[in-house]
Amino acid sequence: MKRRIDYTLYLCTDRSLMSTDTLEEAVEQAVKGGCTLVQLREKDCSSLDFYHTALRIKKITDRYKIPLMINDRADIALAVGADGVHAGQSDLPCTVLRAMLGDDKVIGISASTVEEAVQAQRDGADYLGVGAMFPTGTKSDAEQVSMETLKAVRGAVSIPIVAIGGIGPQNAAQFCGTGIDGLAVISAILSKPDITAAARELRAAFHP
Amino acid sequence: MKRRIDYTLYLCTDRSLMSTDTLEEAVEQAVKGGCTLVQLREKDCSSLDFYHTALRIKKITDRYKIPLMINDRADIALAVGADGVHAGQSDLPCTVLRAMLGDDKVIGISASTVEEAVQAQRDGADYLGVGAMFPTGTKSDAEQVSMETLKAVRGAVSIPIVAIGGIGPQNAAQFCGTGIDGLAVISAILSKPDITAAARELRAAFHP
Repeated sequence: MKRRIDYTLYLCTDRSLMSTDTLEEAVEQAVKGGCTLVQLREKDCSSLDFYHTALRIKKITDRYKIPLMINDRADIALAVGADGVHAGQSDLPCTVLRAMLGDDKVIGISASTVEEAVQAQRDGADYLGVGAMFPTGTKSDAEQVSMETLKAVRGAVSIPIVAIGGIGPQNAAQFCGTGIDGLAVISAILSKPDITAAARELRAAFHP
Repeated sequence: MKRRIDYTLYLCTDRSLMSTDTLEEAVEQAVKGGCTLVQLREKDCSSLDFYHTALRIKKITDRYKIPLMINDRADIALAVGADGVHAGQSDLPCTVLRAMLGDDKVIGISASTVEEAVQAQRDGADYLGVGAMFPTGTKSDAEQVSMETLKAVRGAVSIPIVAIGGIGPQNAAQFCGTGIDGLAVISAILSKPDITAAARELRAAFHP
């Protein structure tokens, strides 16, 4: 059965942002600070490395009973028994993913316009990642999304929405009352010296 | 049901070697010249591009009734209904692929030692790609495999074997009588001005 997900604080991984900790240590610290789900994103490693990393991260998410999503790679998600796949607009189409993964897996789709959001919901997406809300160093080519567009997306679809892109303690409170379900963060947690404290601060700043 | 495969002349794609033709044109010309199966290998494109390319190549392989294998990406293979997946030693493990793909899909594993070959057969591989037999520009980091090792692999496993790496008209005949089932080629076909003639020449030079 499809897992019920708390989207409040959604950690996306990015190894390049991390200082000395291993990814596993960083994820565990973030989860201790209140991250409610984790997305593993690996763009520059072999499939075997991605698989082994995903197995290690899944041990942590299983221990803390939170879901693990895999970015892009449905085969890695199936291989490790992850909860689902998050796909961007350049990844496999939502309908193709649904056919491959079945109804029990969670599919998240990145959207930066109302059209993309409506299409994703129509195609069976379980939630949307909407952004980039603010300029971000993690994805320098990401299209910027205004608060107005975010609100328009919220009005246009009924599935959960997670805002992403440049979100940190300085702007997290802006999303309270917008009707979205969560904030997705990368650098605002992973690049901080105290990862647990950074996650805790974001949990305190945003209430869905 | 798993497809019966003729491994005699196995075309692996590499876009970087091609001159002006589109990949689809090149593959069709190679198949006209006698290639008996095609492996689509895409390392530097988005999942969406890989998927669309695979759909286009599958139209050709379907038309000529030959199998299509996908390199590494089991999700792309499932998405387009390819015949199977070819995995290197840095890709998903054979047992993981088998669990994901079921018994009806073909799984090929790259091996450069007797140990890797025996392990792959034990893990349920349908065939082996053994190489690199000769120095090759396509995979500059590939470990070299001697004719003696190829013969030792042939003696150690019962599944079909395809030799790969630097194989062309100048050395294809060396493989006659070795007991292997096919030759895998990239540049000896795709980098040639007359792709159909290049494939035909290789078919004439090697008899499994």
